[in-house]
Amino acid sequence: MAFSFYYKDNQWPKFLEIIAFGVILGFTGIILTKDAPKELNRKEGFLLVTLSWIVVSAFGSLPYMLIGHLDFTDAFFETMSGFTTTGASILEDIEALPKSLLFWRSLTHWLGGMGIVVLTVAILPILGVGGMKLIKAEAPGPSVEKISPRITETAKYLWFTYILLSAIETVLLLAGGMDLFDALTHTFGTMATGGFSPKNSSVAFFHSAYIDWVITIFMFIAGANFAIHFKLLTGKFSSLKDEELKAYTLIIIIAVFIVTIFNLPIYKDFFNSLRFSAFQVVSIMTTTGYVTADYEKWKPAAQMILFLLMFIGGCAGSTGGSIKVIRVYTLTKQAINELKYNIHPKGVFTLRLNGQHIRKNMIYSTAGFFFLYMATFLTIALAVSLFGVDILTSLSASAATLGNIGPGFGMVGPTDNYAWLPSIVKWILSFAMLVGRLEIYTVFVLFSTAFWKK
Amino acid sequence: MAFSFYYKDNQWPKFLEIIAFGVILGFTGIILTKDAPKELNRKEGFLLVTLSWIVVSAFGSLPYMLIGHLDFTDAFFETMSGFTTTGASILEDIEALPKSLLFWRSLTHWLGGMGIVVLTVAILPILGVGGMKLIKAEAPGPSVEKISPRITETAKYLWFTYILLSAIETVLLLAGGMDLFDALTHTFGTMATGGFSPKNSSVAFFHSAYIDWVITIFMFIAGANFAIHFKLLTGKFSSLKDEELKAYTLIIIIAVFIVTIFNLPIYKDFFNSLRFSAFQVVSIMTTTGYVTADYEKWKPAAQMILFLLMFIGGCAGSTGGSIKVIRVYTLTKQAINELKYNIHPKGVFTLRLNGQHIRKNMIYSTAGFFFLYMATFLTIALAVSLFGVDILTSLSASAATLGNIGPGFGMVGPTDNYAWLPSIVKWILSFAMLVGRLEIYTVFVLFSTAFWKK
Repeated sequence: MAFSFYYKDNQWPKFLEIIAFGVILGFTGIILTKDAPKELNRKEGFLLVTLSWIVVSAFGSLPYMLIGHLDFTDAFFETMSGFTTTGASILEDIEALPKSLLFWRSLTHWLGGMGIVVLTVAILPILGVGGMKLIKAEAPGPSVEKISPRITETAKYLWFTYILLSAIETVLLLAGGMDLFDALTHTFGTMATGGFSPKNSSVAFFHSAYIDWVITIFMFIAGANFAIHFKLLTGKFSSLKDEELKAYTLIIIIAVFIVTIFNLPIYKDFFNSLRFSAFQVVSIMTTTGYVTADYEKWKPAAQMILFLLMFIGGCAGSTGGSIKVIRVYTLTKQAINELKYNIHPKGVFTLRLNGQHIRKNMIYSTAGFFFLYMATFLTIALAVSLFGVDILTSLSASAATLGNIGPGFGMVGPTDNYAWLPSIVKWILSFAMLVGRLEIYTVFVLFSTAFWKK
Repeated sequence: MAFSFYYKDNQWPKFLEIIAFGVILGFTGIILTKDAPKELNRKEGFLLVTLSWIVVSAFGSLPYMLIGHLDFTDAFFETMSGFTTTGASILEDIEALPKSLLFWRSLTHWLGGMGIVVLTVAILPILGVGGMKLIKAEAPGPSVEKISPRITETAKYLWFTYILLSAIETVLLLAGGMDLFDALTHTFGTMATGGFSPKNSSVAFFHSAYIDWVITIFMFIAGANFAIHFKLLTGKFSSLKDEELKAYTLIIIIAVFIVTIFNLPIYKDFFNSLRFSAFQVVSIMTTTGYVTADYEKWKPAAQMILFLLMFIGGCAGSTGGSIKVIRVYTLTKQAINELKYNIHPKGVFTLRLNGQHIRKNMIYSTAGFFFLYMATFLTIALAVSLFGVDILTSLSASAATLGNIGPGFGMVGPTDNYAWLPSIVKWILSFAMLVGRLEIYTVFVLFSTAFWKK
């Protein structure tokens, strides 16, 4: 609403209506649940997390419907894409929309960014609701370290880090010639690894090497564990030795190197090729989805690397989605152990991470996650193909939404959008975004009969 | 050579040369290893299995080079494709080749079919070589049941079942109007779930519903566990209760049903659609790769189902490749357990298969296999794309060779072949066939440093 005033786009009364509606809805909820038990049990935790995302996305659709005149399917898709930091869009001419609406669109990224978890964990305890079990339900990745034993404290530290990094990126983008609107919206998309841009041509619009590099670096930061960033801020540089961070950095360096080489014939000189290759590799790997190049015109090898990175994603505790570096890293180590076990069947091969022994159940659950992720990916792709979408597009749309990336290949590539898909497919992909963002299990437990048994 | 005489294609002297060369090579080997220890250790077992497949494929290339005038790359690819029962071909005009060579081509399937394992297990013990450890190394799938405690006996029973089923199919195909050559070669391709056909248009050549159904049924049989077939022959019908067999049958029924529905507009009447859909679903699921329809012209959903089935494959103990039904089934059960575990973190959820408790290490190794399979699939696809092959073709060529299927999608689809690929890609895909056929671990242990340590 503030931006609507600022830009005089005359949309503020509609924002006011929505705010009023939200306040009434919120207070009604508080009054209705006044006498409810203050403690959540495990099942309620799962249910609350999933329902929160759905309700918030439904509510967040209102500006798109009232101001952008989208139908509910498109509005919900765009909002879910925002809150899950996916960045898949059904908008065909973004720049034609009022700036206040585009600001809201980018804001959904930023709010979703650290997960509604941190928001709910910081707010719900004030309302007297125990949030401990929610952290378990929504923590991105298998090993979010406890920075502080108290959840509220942890949430505050993470928010502080998130806001500070956002402020720095905004200042750096302003210094690169962006206006405040562009700087803020692109910061939101970066820090949340979301990828919504208020420009039709995404970050390519600015034709600036400086802006490309600032965003590349901050996407890299946003794809790493925020617990590590907080430790670095407090001077604990030993946290740079984190194995996941090292693996994450190494994968990116190798991928950037190969893609840069393959792109040399297109971009002529090395630094130009490095700029576009690094941007796109980091954008896809961190599941951001910003675009500075039509990578479908790149060599197949460069495209295939982007496709592979879609299945790795960011670090645990980052805003990035997909399978996560820690899981891929753990499973790779475990696969090597299995090979050794084949040679020495009586040997004992333990798995260590940052010097700590990983318990077998943890590996189980990671391996189970991987299988469930791939099975979900293929099932969603099949569901999409049922409605006539070709197989490359089905596969890449599934990977790009489940992994919370945004653009894919085929007819949902970097120069396309999701607008042309049938309504039902948009709902399937909205579901994929939710499932991917909530680490699959959180949503799937709701479909288990065991969940609904007394 | 016998077929060369029979068809008077004048190629018998070349076969004689190759046979003489093989006999000399074989006896030289026997003489050189006369004083070698009679017992194999575990590492030697792995090495022997992998090397055997490579050496046999190299030797088996000779007829292609001498008679078909192929270069070594193409000849090796075709032979490896034969012995691994893949069925991917680099031949552009199959029917132009001498019949004796085409017979050899199909024979490589049949010999490879039950795995050189059964051959070596039945022959090597006569030479006094302990084969027990080889079974472990090459057994297709995680749970080949011991029908007989003695390996030689087991091998003989399996061969007997294999030969008997082959004889029945041959007779049924002869009854359908095929000549002996066509009946035998198509039987070889079916029972081995290989897919080489001496016709350019594969099984579509015969335009016969009867032949299509006979081959469909025998592909289904060949994709199931031969230990079960043997038990059925001995009257033990309780083996039909096998959980893997049930899952395998159920997946096929569901897939055939959906594909048949989606193909109705193309094939007009239900039974016609059922015929072509069932043939192709069973052909891909069992990793045979015979073709009666250009499935790339089917609806995307029908194509996507074929793509998914590529990652399931046959049953353990069948001649089918890919991940295997038992693994997918076990991991699905485990994933459901994980969901329950998320709801009741203190619960104990065991995994049972055919009434037997599955030990945790078994699930580990299965989950590890799945991860390694997917990682290998994507790595091979990346390696192929490095040489300029588009991403859909790279992905499907990788899936089709690693899974020992044969035809894929894109430029290696049902109406294409592998001839146009660069030489280096043919070597990469030959490697993929070997790795897939030998259940990945068998080959990959050789790349582990632990393997080469004293």
